[in-house]
Amino acid sequence: MFTKNQAKLIKSLDEKKNRLETGLFLVEGEKSVSELLDSDFEIDLVLTTTEFFDKYGEKIREKSKSYEIVNQSELEKVGTFTTNNAALAVVKQKKILEPKNDSEIFLALDEIKDPGNLGTIIRIADWYGIKNIIASKNTVDFYNPKVITATKGSFTRVKIFYTDLNDFLLKTKLPIFGAFLNGKNIHETKFPKSGILVMGNESNGISRELEKNINQRITIPSFGKAESLNVAIATAIILDNWKNSN
Amino acid sequence: MFTKNQAKLIKSLDEKKNRLETGLFLVEGEKSVSELLDSDFEIDLVLTTTEFFDKYGEKIREKSKSYEIVNQSELEKVGTFTTNNAALAVVKQKKILEPKNDSEIFLALDEIKDPGNLGTIIRIADWYGIKNIIASKNTVDFYNPKVITATKGSFTRVKIFYTDLNDFLLKTKLPIFGAFLNGKNIHETKFPKSGILVMGNESNGISRELEKNINQRITIPSFGKAESLNVAIATAIILDNWKNSN
Repeated sequence: MFTKNQAKLIKSLDEKKNRLETGLFLVEGEKSVSELLDSDFEIDLVLTTTEFFDKYGEKIREKSKSYEIVNQSELEKVGTFTTNNAALAVVKQKKILEPKNDSEIFLALDEIKDPGNLGTIIRIADWYGIKNIIASKNTVDFYNPKVITATKGSFTRVKIFYTDLNDFLLKTKLPIFGAFLNGKNIHETKFPKSGILVMGNESNGISRELEKNINQRITIPSFGKAESLNVAIATAIILDNWKNSN
Repeated sequence: MFTKNQAKLIKSLDEKKNRLETGLFLVEGEKSVSELLDSDFEIDLVLTTTEFFDKYGEKIREKSKSYEIVNQSELEKVGTFTTNNAALAVVKQKKILEPKNDSEIFLALDEIKDPGNLGTIIRIADWYGIKNIIASKNTVDFYNPKVITATKGSFTRVKIFYTDLNDFLLKTKLPIFGAFLNGKNIHETKFPKSGILVMGNESNGISRELEKNINQRITIPSFGKAESLNVAIATAIILDNWKNSN
């Protein structure tokens, strides 16, 4: 039976301090929970409607420690979605170690604040085969329910390592590219097979402290009058150019 | 003096039927209102805080038929923003005619439903110098306050013409490119100087009816496992490749 204590725990996971304390996070909605069931995350509990259970019951039994059949209004009452007629899962966070493989493209995020932007960036990273993101400690929490939802399932394949980004960039031997409004045109840039792409904060761009570590300032050429592009859009365009030049 | 009737009118402009009836729309926030003041839109009324008026007072007097100094909480009470410490304007909609110039890139949108997506697409179009968007009649309204806000000022430079998209595509002599999941790799596509890029609905892509008008199906190559990209992200990547191959 779905208990009051379970409901209380689920509601508490909307807040970062409770996620830190419990080591748990929420996954909600058909797309995300179905991808979760195909991943190696440890699942504590799945709340599922009968419709979702009809489709994924076998996997739920196999992958989740426990499950409860609930109705849509119960899901919406405990979760963060306004509308959820599918499922919600309580999942164990993974311990993410510093990525060691130096023969790939890493994305480095400097203070990305908006959960929708981070989630979208993770989805884009997954599209371009980026497996590891390094993020400054003041970047929004990966396990924020809005981030998880915006990844459209890609949270199961892309890892984020939170660290002192300046230290990380000082240590690396990889070439470091950074997105600015006054760098080299990406259409004329030859990108290496492996390297780091640094993307900065939504309002302020890459911070002064990090700027000195950038080997190559790059820019998306503009043909019109918009002042800037959203950071997730810019990340997508640059990764597309990077992959295209390899 | 800021009257109850003005407040009532402003509140009503959140709904499409009232925008249609009055021919007016709302522009909110510092970025959007400041770009509005540099545009040729006819402005009926600006509600401004003293801070915003200190910066833009001269332009407000010059461009707007009337203005009222209000405080932040009055702005937030009548407008759609949760936080607005700058300004809000009531603006006349423009009559948009069918674009005639055939030597440019047009974006054609088939049932884009999300206001944030449409606004972001308009901002991207502005970045890439696209001046005209053709949209199916079931695409979200350009004058929706969420669309206007998401354009980050680009609503002043990009026009949307709503029409029967199928008829439009049947008539045009320009080559028609459409984004699909199984088309030609955009990295290997030679794009023409002028043409039409069709982008489809968030869930269903380009509709069956329009599909037969597409001359070249194109696809963003994937290097990872994400199933799809957001439509605004995809639009940005394709336009970047289009501009890069010219």
